Amino acid sequence: MPMARDNNNFISLERAKKPFFIGVDLGGTNIKAGIVDDLGRPLAWLSVPTDVPKGPEDASARMGKAVLQVAEKAGVDISNIARVGLGSPGTMDIPAGKLLKPANLKGWDYFPLRDRVSQHCGLPVTFANDANAAAYGEFWVGSGRDFHSMVLFTLGTGIGSGIIIGELCLDGEHSHGGECGHIIINFSPDARLCGCGQRGHLEAYTSATAVVKRTREALDAGRSSSLTADLNRGGELTPKLVAEHAENGDPLSLDIIMETARYLGVGITNVMHTLDPNGILLGGAMTFGGNETQLGRDFLAEIKAEVKRRAYAILAEKTVIDFATLGGDAGYIGAAGLARLEFLKK
Amino acid sequence: MPMARDNNNFISLERAKKPFFIGVDLGGTNIKAGIVDDLGRPLAWLSVPTDVPKGPEDASARMGKAVLQVAEKAGVDISNIARVGLGSPGTMDIPAGKLLKPANLKGWDYFPLRDRVSQHCGLPVTFANDANAAAYGEFWVGSGRDFHSMVLFTLGTGIGSGIIIGELCLDGEHSHGGECGHIIINFSPDARLCGCGQRGHLEAYTSATAVVKRTREALDAGRSSSLTADLNRGGELTPKLVAEHAENGDPLSLDIIMETARYLGVGITNVMHTLDPNGILLGGAMTFGGNETQLGRDFLAEIKAEVKRRAYAILAEKTVIDFATLGGDAGYIGAAGLARLEFLKK
Repeated sequence: MPMARDNNNFISLERAKKPFFIGVDLGGTNIKAGIVDDLGRPLAWLSVPTDVPKGPEDASARMGKAVLQVAEKAGVDISNIARVGLGSPGTMDIPAGKLLKPANLKGWDYFPLRDRVSQHCGLPVTFANDANAAAYGEFWVGSGRDFHSMVLFTLGTGIGSGIIIGELCLDGEHSHGGECGHIIINFSPDARLCGCGQRGHLEAYTSATAVVKRTREALDAGRSSSLTADLNRGGELTPKLVAEHAENGDPLSLDIIMETARYLGVGITNVMHTLDPNGILLGGAMTFGGNETQLGRDFLAEIKAEVKRRAYAILAEKTVIDFATLGGDAGYIGAAGLARLEFLKK
Repeated sequence: MPMARDNNNFISLERAKKPFFIGVDLGGTNIKAGIVDDLGRPLAWLSVPTDVPKGPEDASARMGKAVLQVAEKAGVDISNIARVGLGSPGTMDIPAGKLLKPANLKGWDYFPLRDRVSQHCGLPVTFANDANAAAYGEFWVGSGRDFHSMVLFTLGTGIGSGIIIGELCLDGEHSHGGECGHIIINFSPDARLCGCGQRGHLEAYTSATAVVKRTREALDAGRSSSLTADLNRGGELTPKLVAEHAENGDPLSLDIIMETARYLGVGITNVMHTLDPNGILLGGAMTFGGNETQLGRDFLAEIKAEVKRRAYAILAEKTVIDFATLGGDAGYIGAAGLARLEFLKK
């Protein structure tokens, strides 16, 4: 199961179009900073550890430094950088430029991230939700570039999502726009528990955590599977392992993955009936290799089949459902793109 | 149970601000045409029968005539009408100005409604979905006038909804934006059947039809209720009857209405987690009298309690959930408002 890909096909400085924008994608493990030109083409990127326990002031200094370093790496003078975009995990207050209580950045509560990073790099910073930034990246230069509106689902440990309508990145009025992983698809009181503590959410059925849990339950219920031998040898039950066994023909593993696809089809139908976008894109590690593997293609086909069963016929026919293409670059490219949007407005 | 109210508090021609806009709200039974000033204040309205079986050409002629008549009624010269807005039930193709297969306008399939009405009144026409037009009316001059973004649910035979974000009326890319009555809240294969033919939709649990069906099932299951005597005397089981019995203290009737509120709370939570708007407004006959009755207030309180149980705490705290205020005028006022938006863009 290939992970999100990093792009190393850079445009040369000579061919790039000014001005330049730098995007920073802040994750729980790594910080990725990349520089793109006015058409969203990357010139360089670099990655540094987030080191959450060292705290947000220390990390802000490293993010500021990474911004300056990636400009230098690309050979771009800092005076040609129009603006920086910073995509961060939530919860957050986007207009205030502050974190609220980010689940994956323990101890960083209420930190004024936007302004601290700005001070450390000496450039104006646009603050964004990481999932929304990734969605904007796909919209700007990825597989959403022909869309007027789209939703990106990032399938991983959790289910992230971002909504773009025209040039509008849907932050929402309280910085909670596009939390489509947390729409309720099963209102029952005994519905599955989500990582957020609520029940019946799309994420509770389709995240990596959910796939492991559902597989474990099926094994505990006595379903036979080639997984059992691996686990008895001390192997860890992960979506990657389930995917490998599915690819090797294990019926249970394949059932689990196709069931995941059908749950996603329900969530995608809800988003289509609410927003009616041009396209729905799927990114993240839980796309099982995407278009590059048979399993990935079968997974997508099953999602589409469920949408066809569930959605208005005209929407099922006309709405594009496909894999995202920017992989691990979507976050920094999109953050840079949102910085560009703000730059153009000023 | 009061029905949607009509406003007869008109602004005088002397106090009105030019230019004027006329909105037409096309329903399955009646056509309502009203004239408003540049601030959305009504000067006059009138209503004529839709007479669906006479066909769309005949109705287009009557809509064109109604536009001219309502201007005359208000004493406004036609040269001061900037544009007409037409809100129609779907399905439709908004950019093309055409109906597709509207369920409530049998025999009108694929009719070019916008251009035919325009020809009959001699004025440019903006075409809109009726639920979106009503949402825009509440956003412009109703209980949503302080919001930047909002969703209106119209609770009736079906569950209509419209989404407004800034000045954007979310038509969607295939004229199916804001069909929030058709989001799946129960993915189970034995979930309730919706009027649209699919299962598990919000509408399948909360529409007038669903309330009747759920009440009937409870009675058939042997629950005692003061409804039984009424029905034995030949009374018809309607949401109005259920509401009357709830107001008179019948526990079953009250349970049904409060359960409806909790289902709505699930759907509203989904919309909040997707769009994060400033407010959610509830209109239509199935608001049980709204703020004017104890039952209406209890209904709203139960919706809010379910949202508080289900939604992110910050959203449950900050998102306004309230009744709409324009009643039966929202449609024509909003259609006129959307015409004004298009007029201002040109």
